Formats: sequence, C-alpha cells, structure tokens
Amino acid sequence: MGIVVQTIERAEPDVIDRLAAAGVATVHEAQGRKGMLASHMRPIYAGAQIAGSAVTISAPPGDNWMLHVAIEQIREGDILVLAPTSPCDNGYFGDLLATSAKARGCRGLVIDAGVRDVRDLTQMQFPVWSKAVSAQGTVKETPGSVNVPIVCAGAHIEAGDIIVADDDGVCVVKRAEAVDVLAAAEKRMANEEAKRKRLAAGELGLDLYGMRPTLEAKGLKYV
Amino acid sequence: MGIVVQTIERAEPDVIDRLAAAGVATVHEAQGRKGMLASHMRPIYAGAQIAGSAVTISAPPGDNWMLHVAIEQIREGDILVLAPTSPCDNGYFGDLLATSAKARGCRGLVIDAGVRDVRDLTQMQFPVWSKAVSAQGTVKETPGSVNVPIVCAGAHIEAGDIIVADDDGVCVVKRAEAVDVLAAAEKRMANEEAKRKRLAAGELGLDLYGMRPTLEAKGLKYV
Amino acid sequence: MGIVVQTIERAEPDVIDRLAAAGVATVHEAQGRKGMLASHMRPIYAGAQIAGSAVTISAPPGDNWMLHVAIEQIREGDILVLAPTSPCDNGYFGDLLATSAKARGCRGLVIDAGVRDVRDLTQMQFPVWSKAVSAQGTVKETPGSVNVPIVCAGAHIEAGDIIVADDDGVCVVKRAEAVDVLAAAEKRMANEEAKRKRLAAGELGLDLYGMRPTLEAKGLKYV
Amino acid sequence: MGIVVQTIERAEPDVIDRLAAAGVATVHEAQGRKGMLASHMRPIYAGAQIAGSAVTISAPPGDNWMLHVAIEQIREGDILVLAPTSPCDNGYFGDLLATSAKARGCRGLVIDAGVRDVRDLTQMQFPVWSKAVSAQGTVKETPGSVNVPIVCAGAHIEAGDIIVADDDGVCVVKRAEAVDVLAAAEKRMANEEAKRKRLAAGELGLDLYGMRPTLEAKGLKYV
Amino acid sequence: MGIVVQTIERAEPDVIDRLAAAGVATVHEAQGRKGMLASHMRPIYAGAQIAGSAVTISAPPGDNWMLHVAIEQIREGDILVLAPTSPCDNGYFGDLLATSAKARGCRGLVIDAGVRDVRDLTQMQFPVWSKAVSAQGTVKETPGSVNVPIVCAGAHIEAGDIIVADDDGVCVVKRAEAVDVLAAAEKRMANEEAKRKRLAAGELGLDLYGMRPTLEAKGLKYV
Amino acid sequence: MGIVVQTIERAEPDVIDRLAAAGVATVHEAQGRKGMLASHMRPIYAGAQIAGSAVTISAPPGDNWMLHVAIEQIREGDILVLAPTSPCDNGYFGDLLATSAKARGCRGLVIDAGVRDVRDLTQMQFPVWSKAVSAQGTVKETPGSVNVPIVCAGAHIEAGDIIVADDDGVCVVKRAEAVDVLAAAEKRMANEEAKRKRLAAGELGLDLYGMRPTLEAKGLKYV
Repeated sequence: MGIVVQTIERAEPDVIDRLAAAGVATVHEAQGRKGMLASHMRPIYAGAQIAGSAVTISAPPGDNWMLHVAIEQIREGDILVLAPTSPCDNGYFGDLLATSAKARGCRGLVIDAGVRDVRDLTQMQFPVWSKAVSAQGTVKETPGSVNVPIVCAGAHIEAGDIIVADDDGVCVVKRAEAVDVLAAAEKRMANEEAKRKRLAAGELGLDLYGMRPTLEAKGLKYV
Repeated sequence: MGIVVQTIERAEPDVIDRLAAAGVATVHEAQGRKGMLASHMRPIYAGAQIAGSAVTISAPPGDNWMLHVAIEQIREGDILVLAPTSPCDNGYFGDLLATSAKARGCRGLVIDAGVRDVRDLTQMQFPVWSKAVSAQGTVKETPGSVNVPIVCAGAHIEAGDIIVADDDGVCVVKRAEAVDVLAAAEKRMANEEAKRKRLAAGELGLDLYGMRPTLEAKGLKYV
Repeated sequence: MGIVVQTIERAEPDVIDRLAAAGVATVHEAQGRKGMLASHMRPIYAGAQIAGSAVTISAPPGDNWMLHVAIEQIREGDILVLAPTSPCDNGYFGDLLATSAKARGCRGLVIDAGVRDVRDLTQMQFPVWSKAVSAQGTVKETPGSVNVPIVCAGAHIEAGDIIVADDDGVCVVKRAEAVDVLAAAEKRMANEEAKRKRLAAGELGLDLYGMRPTLEAKGLKYV
Repeated sequence: MGIVVQTIERAEPDVIDRLAAAGVATVHEAQGRKGMLASHMRPIYAGAQIAGSAVTISAPPGDNWMLHVAIEQIREGDILVLAPTSPCDNGYFGDLLATSAKARGCRGLVIDAGVRDVRDLTQMQFPVWSKAVSAQGTVKETPGSVNVPIVCAGAHIEAGDIIVADDDGVCVVKRAEAVDVLAAAEKRMANEEAKRKRLAAGELGLDLYGMRPTLEAKGLKYV
Repeated sequence: MGIVVQTIERAEPDVIDRLAAAGVATVHEAQGRKGMLASHMRPIYAGAQIAGSAVTISAPPGDNWMLHVAIEQIREGDILVLAPTSPCDNGYFGDLLATSAKARGCRGLVIDAGVRDVRDLTQMQFPVWSKAVSAQGTVKETPGSVNVPIVCAGAHIEAGDIIVADDDGVCVVKRAEAVDVLAAAEKRMANEEAKRKRLAAGELGLDLYGMRPTLEAKGLKYV
Repeated sequence: MGIVVQTIERAEPDVIDRLAAAGVATVHEAQGRKGMLASHMRPIYAGAQIAGSAVTISAPPGDNWMLHVAIEQIREGDILVLAPTSPCDNGYFGDLLATSAKARGCRGLVIDAGVRDVRDLTQMQFPVWSKAVSAQGTVKETPGSVNVPIVCAGAHIEAGDIIVADDDGVCVVKRAEAVDVLAAAEKRMANEEAKRKRLAAGELGLDLYGMRPTLEAKGLKYV
C-alpha cells in the first residue's frame, strides 16, 4: 500500500526564509489563526527558528522505515514531517538519520511521535519538534508513504506546504497561500513595532486599541 | 456578566519579597502543605523565583480580552493570574502584552492555559508559568472578570493573595496568613541549614530525625 | 507489611561505567529493544548521563518515608529508583534528601512521581529523572519496602539491576545480562561510527543498508 | 492539622429538590455558566439525577480515613464531596462505606479520585461521580478535614453548597444563590419547552433566535 | 472570516446505508486501515450504528454558534461533524439542537469536544460520538465555517465525505472512494463468515491463515 | 527474538473460581493492596466477573500477530493478557479472534491497548478489559513473545499467574500465593458481612472500628 511521490512543488526559497524570520505566532495570526499543530509538539532545544518545504511521511506505529525512503526525496531547505498512523511515542529518529538528513540539506524534523539521541541532535544543531523524547526503538517491516497528504498533530499537511517552527511550536502554511501570508505577516510585524513602543511607555492596550466603548457595550462593570 | 474589581488589598511588600526568597517548597510546607497549583504549571525558562500580589482573571476559552483590562489594575509588584472558564491551551499572552504588563510593574504571569512568544519573553526575563506553550491565537469577543475569586490549576485564589513561583511550580498564600507563613518559612529555613550540614557529613536521616523506633513500631522488617 | 532487603548483588563497576558511556539508546537497542521506562520520565536538567545499581523503593502515594530508609542501603555508585504504589505526582525528594544520598555515594534518582528543589539539585548536579516537578509535600506515616522488585514507569526492576539514564530517558538492564548487553552495545557503537561517516558524506541509508529490494518486495511504489 | 466543622448551613430541602429536577445543564446556565466540575467526573451508572448539600472532605492521597469521620456529619439529603490534596485515583469508597452513608441519609458521592465495588453500588442505586474506578486500596494514617472549603475537580466548594449531579456531570451552586438560581432555572425550563416544539416542527434556530442579522454583521459569508 | 458552503456533493444513499451496515471496523479495513478518528471519540450510548454525509463545522473553542448555521445546511441522512479550532471540552450541543437537527433529517453528531443533555439524547435515540460529556455552556460570539475541510480527532474530513460510526468509534470514507470501499467491505464480510465458522469449530488462525512458515522464517522459537 | 513458552504451571481450577467469586477489590486487599493494573483498564461491558490463568503476550505496537500464536497455547479457563512493547491504542482484537479464543476455552482478554467489534463481543459475552476501544487495524509483520513475563498496565505478570477481573478493574495474583490469598479473601468476606449489617443499621465506622482515640491522638479537632 506504500506510495512515494517523487515530484512535489515547493514555494520560493525567499518566501520560505522570510516566513522563518516572521516566526510562528506572527505567521499563524497572519493567515487567520489557522495551521497550528497541537501544543504537545515541543522543540528538543530552545532557540531554533526555521521554515522549509514539507516532505511528508505516513508511517505505521513503531516502524521508521519510511524515514530512510523520505531522506532520498529531500531537497535543500526541506523539513521532514512524520505522522504515525496511530498514536505512538517511539523514538523513530536519532543521530544517524539526522546525519543523513542534514547531508541532504534537511533543516529539521517535525514528528508526532518520539525522537532520541537528543543530546547529539542538540550538538549538531539539528532541530526537532516532537511529541516525546524516547529511546524506544522501531522496526523496519511495513512500508508507509512519502509525500502524501497527512494529518500531523491535528493539522492537515501536504507535501510542499511550508512548515514554520520555533519555540512557540509548529505552523503549516499552504503553498498556494504562502505569498499572501508572508505579506500579511510582514505588515503585522511593522504594525507591532509601533505598538510595542507605546505599550513600553505605559500606554494601556485599552486605550491603544480603543477597547473601552466595546467593553462597556458588552456589559463590563467596574466596581 | 463581566466584573472588574478595582480595589484590592495587598500584603506588605517586605513580606512578599521575603516569601519570594524562601521559595515555593519552603513556603508550601510552612503553611501546612497546602496552596500548590497543579504540577502541569511549568515555567517557560529556568531560574526565575518571584512573589507578588495576585491580580486574578477569569476568561472564556480562547478569549484574551480581559488581559488588557487586567493590566490597568496592576500595581508595582503584582502578578497576573489567569484561569480559563474551561480547559484551553490557546496562547493568550505574548510579547506585546508582556511589554505592557512590565511597563506597569508586573512581575510575571501564571496562566492555566497557553502562552506564546516565549523566546521574546525569555529575553525580556518576563517569567511565565503555564499549562502549555502555544501560538494558537485568541479572540476579543466576550468579557470575563478581573479580581474575582478564581480556581487556577486546582487552587482557589483571591485577588491580593500572594503568589510564590519558582522552578518547583506555583504556590498561593492567603493574604491574611502571609505574615504567619513567612515566620514559619524563615524558621524552617534556619532549621534546614543545620540539618543539611549533618546530612552532607554522612549522618542518616533515620538517625537525625529519630525514625528507627517508629518504623519498627509500624512493622518494618529488615531481611 | 514493609520489608527492607539489605543484601543485594551488584554488577561490576567497570561494566556499569561502560554502560553509562554507551548511553540509553545504544544500550536499549543492544538488549533487543527492551527495558525502556515510559517516555514521561524526563531529566530535570539536560546533559547528565549515568549508570548505577538500582536500590529500589516501593512507596505509598504521598509518603516519602522509605527514601530515608533506602539511603542507608546505598553503596557508592547506586541509583535510587522509586515507584509509588499508585499514580502520584507529589514531590517526594528535594535538596536535603539529595544531600544525604550524595554523601552516601548515590549517583541519581529515578522516580515515577514528583521531585522538588530542582534548582538546588541542578546546582548540586544531582540528576533526577521524574514524572513531574512538584513542591507538593509528603507525609511519613506508612512504611513501604526497599530492594524488592518494583514496576517503575512500566518497567520491571529488581534491586541490583543496572539503570542507565541520559537525555533520552531511562533504561534498565538485568544484572545477569549486563556483560552481554555491554558487549553488544560496544559492538554497535563501533559499527555506527563507520555508518555515520558514510551518511555524512551523502550516501543514502536505502543503499547503505541495502533496503531497496526489500521495499520493492513489500510493494512500495514510486510515482 | 485536621479539622472537622460540625455545624453547617444548608439550603431549604424544597429548593434543593427542585434544583435536582432542573438538572445540571439548566442549573449551570441559570447561574451564568459557572460552577461545573471538570468533565472527567463521570457517573458510575447512567440515569441518576440528584441534588444535596455538600459535606466536604479534604483527604491525603491514598488515605480514606476522613470518609468515616465525614459520615457522622451527614444529615438526611446530603452529598459527600471528596477532594484529595494531590491527584490520586485510588478507590477511596466502596460498598461498606456506601452502606453506612446511605443509612445516614446520604444521596451520593462526588469524588475527584477513585471508587470501587461499582457493581454493588449500582445494585444499591447509590450514585457516585468520580475521576476513576479503581479497586486500589487506601490507608487510614493521616487525618484530613471535613466541612472546610475545598477545590474539587476545578470547582471551589464550601460545606452546605448545593451539589447537582446527573449524566451531564456535576455542578455546584453557592448556598446563598440557590433561591435565585432556582428561579432562573425554572424560568429557563418554561422557555425551552416552547422553543423545543418550534424546533421539532422544523423551524430553524437561525430564525427562532433572530441570528441572521448578527451573523451577517460579523462577516459570515454564504458561498 | 466565516464561510458557509451551501452546495456539497453527497454519495448515493444506498451506498451510505450499506456502509452503515458494514460497520466501522470492516469499512476501515476495507479502505486500507485509514480514516479512523482518534479513539477518544466515544458514543454517548451503546448500540447505534450509522452512516451519513458529513456536514462539517469549524468552530472556535467555547462557541457553538455555527451549529445553528450548519443545521440549515442539513439534508436528510446527513451527520454533523464539528472540530473546534483548539482543544475544548465544552458542551456545544444538547437536546434543543438535537431536536432541531433531527427535524431536518440529521442522523447524528460527531464532535471533538463536549456534548450535554445526554440522557435526553439517549431517550431521543439521537446518537453522538464525542470527546467529552460536559454541561459547560458556550457563547455565540464568533463565526466559524460550515462545509469547509476540517481535521476532526486526527482525521481530515471534507463536506460530503461519508461518516461511519458505531460502538467501535468513527471512520471517514472519501466520497470519491465510497463505492470501491463498499465493494471491498462487502467482500470482506462474505469472507469473514466462512472463517468465523472454522474458528468457532476450533481451527487455529495459525493454520487457517497459513502463518506457521512465515513465523518460523521470522525466527519465532517454541521452547 | 520472539519466544513461545509452551509449558506453564497453572493454579488449581477450584482456587481460581473462588478468587473470581471474591472479586477484585477483596482479592486485592487480601494480598496486601498489591497487584492492581492501572485504572485505565476498563471493561467493554458491565457485569462480567472472571478469573483465569494468564497466557501472556508481548507484542509490538500495531502488530497483533502474536494473538494467533497465543490462542494455540490456551487451555480451558485461561485469560489472554497482552502488553504492547510501547504505548498503543490500536484495535488488536475483534470478533474473529474472540470466536477462536472462546472455542479454545478462553474466558476473556486483558489488553493494555485497543479492542474492536465491541458490540459483537458483548453479544458473545466475551469480556475484555482494555485501555481503549478502537477499530484501528494492525499488521502481522513482527513476532513478539508468548508466556514470557510482561508488564501490563503497570503490573508485572508471569504466565500462569491468576488474573481476576470485574467492574472494578483487573488484579493479578502470583500463582504461588494464590491459596493464601484466597484464604485471606474468604476470611475478609466473612468479616465484612457482619460489619455491613451494623453499618446498615446506622452504627458509625468511627465506633465500629474504634477510630475515635486514634484520630484524637493524631490531632483531629472538632470545631
């Protein structure tokens, strides 16, 4: 039943890199508060902030065979995204796979399961967002699929969609919407800078955003 | 239905600061092992140790409007404490709100929900204890209440109660009990120092605390 | 009902130290992918990598009395391993107990419950793997047992078994199997070094491990 | 540290019984969507619908001693409400305690922990709402308190507050608000009957509640 | 941002009804072990077995407004499927909405959140599969969308896809694949009948499926 | 690595049947409050109460091959007990396997994973205690082991140990202790009957068990 889709469309590298610079929270707001993966997806170390094209993997629970298959499909700047077909916290990925993926230009891994060798991965600065850290090993018995649509940590992801990940978690941007989302994100960032200064000076959000009349209309009472 | 209580009583600043110095574990023991928030409340970065008067917020799931309202109620040395009215892991709070809160003298945030922009908050050294880190955005549609009694992560908290938070979690001290709890905490700390030295020298707790007869009476057998 | 077994067999110190050097993922694979504790067992700080003989503790929920009893049983190089008799996240262990345990030669603690004073423990470099961090205190009312077989985080552990723990979690090695597991682990490490170099040079795992024919036989389709 | 408060105020029996008849969902809405215990509180059998005055119990994890103490405090029509001082799923309560409680006029138990002998309890028609079903036994070593304020499954409950429980879960009504909440609940029930008929006849809520203009104003688009 | 798609394609009623008769486990296997919603989706009462076309709803946490909008879009034989935009266990749906939905021909509700009035719904025999039972109320403040693609309990669902639900959980079948899946399911059912008889007569699966040589080849040892 | 142990010792049928009659709570207390499996192990239908000799299965996540192997090892009165080697909620077992197991004399299944076809199993009155109900299918690719020691839902179980299961959950009794545990259980049942009558007549546990002096000594205060 396994399928490997070998040709996928990717967004422009410049768009991807600027989405990385914008970061998860901004990108997520810019596209209408959608696309976040579940909050159990946590980075194995703090400080990484990346974006890349998704190479998607659907894998059986406890079987990491498809990671080897997927690595062949990586192009410079891609991010591996793995969803097990049922909940699993096994350590699908460790330092050898990271060495291989990095050699192919991979920027990181997003996996709704476990990862291991996290000290090595941290030293290599190969970032991973995962549901668990676990050394529990896997088998190589049952094929899955690569570059098919998957649901990873509650988000629907297609190969070539843009993954943005940082300390706040992971967000997916549809490839077709990437340019528009980037424009909205950069506009948002410009706006926020001015607001930050006014808030830092002690101005209240209640005044800055003109919220007082609406709150009163909604019935908020001060006592 | 939203209410904002504008006048709250606070404990003495000196009492609050000494509770901060005592730390969560000591304060919690000193008041009879009560007041701990649930252990899912984790700091976004290690090393912060604070205490402050609670400005409480009851907010609907996925709606962070009341944070703006609450910030106006902050006095120097306060801590924001937010409980959603039902379980929610949305990112209610990020760098703009932190900038605003900090400008008003806020020492930190305790939130039984999500927080975002954690890298920025870490750089600002604005400490947060939360249930989740998530960039998932919120709306501003439904008022909640400020400075009403809330249950946050399993603890009942009233405005003006003292929040103590460090790497061990979060503890609440009733305002009326703060002076007595501080006295007990400081006494406890003095006692512990002597014990620490004896234990470090290899003396056993079994002997130091005189536990052997009680254990024997309870039926413990050595084989 | 409490029992303290005072005489336990331990593996050779050299074997234990070389298992520590191999690390959790390698040891776990070397013994046939068994022995991992559940992935909720997380270190309180990153970077510790230890092995030692298990001094096991079975304790009631919310009662840390047996830790004092167990510390007397510690020999240089041991690791305390505590399983509550039902799920509990209380902070059974803090800086005083760590001071005492360390003075007796203890290398660390593995506890399927909570720990506190984590900042102090980090400064002391006393490593702990736990289910939770919590300052919630415990009582000393009901005896448990020391050095009896326990199930800790899903793994069956007998006193004297070897515990290996690092950033990937915790693994147990049966004492009788330690020498064989070490041999397999060191062989595995030697093999991995060569593979790492080839993978770093861009060779694919698909080729390195000769997976293509098997994948084809299992029906994997490239499209 | 244990305290037993022997005198508590209770609401009028007629008010309590009519709140039972209204049921949890209606009562909860009638008091402004507050007072629900967390949704993990589930009945051990379907079909019970009760209300009664809370006799509250704060108990250590794994220690059910205070249930015996609390049963002496029961008056006809009361409900036992137990919160452990930290998370615990032990079976604190079984058929003997139920026999005793029932003999004193107790209507049921609400417990944020475990219960056992559920087949017997079902045969006795003694309803329980709990976090878990577990036969794991408890000790009688450490006193807790009875009829002090507690937080049970996220709700703050004082002795004498009215507990309403049915297949939808458990709700608490402050004693001082019981009469007003009952009035609002009964009004709500009367209103709902008319709406139910119109909806059953095929009329849409969009029209019945006049929602179309507001939805349009909020920007909802039909495509 | 809310959108309501008013025209959706549906599968043939006969295909849908025969998928219902096949049941979840068979349909799920017949389409290659895909399409299951997460196992936390449980029926509010045992014994319902349905299939229908999905009318999808994306709703904010704690806001059930879109259910009213969606009910207008129901055609005879449809099933409502609601995914909150972030995890939420509020009771979005109760007896009034069920009355309305049933009057429009709705066969049931699948909701990755909470439901209430479960006793009434059981009496009406209106089946619901949900993550939680909770009376916690919702607001009607923020529009969501109807008949857009959603991810519900880990499964990607488009309006008009076929939902199959029974005591084993919930499965989604892509509309375009429904006829093929049905054929495979019915073939599977025919095959199973013969196997069931042989197994009931005591024949072993090891022999019936010819597993012994493969197990031996894989290294299984009998000792 | 898979092993099938073909010869196991079993307890006397009469002892097993009388343990079944005693039930889980009584047996668990009679053996010193040990042996309970975790409380997430729930029956698929209410009312079953069984005991039998454990035929243990260690299986990879998502792979149910070993169930076929284990069924051959069943003797009249046995119970299958399956632990996955890492957490998994797949539906390993359904009506065909139940038909086969029942034909061999199997009394039920205890599985720390998922089960499916629960309506059929209920109609067959084949009881199952599981972590989940899920139709998610499994593969038959990787051997596990049968009749080796396992940890299932937190309990260490060896082949031939006695499993007792009812609506309160699942308990394991070591084969070597079965006779003693039975004696203690039957003594306990005899004692309880007298107590039940006195409690039903309104006598308090405080008096029946003579708790008042101990509570006073422990410092309980009545106010």
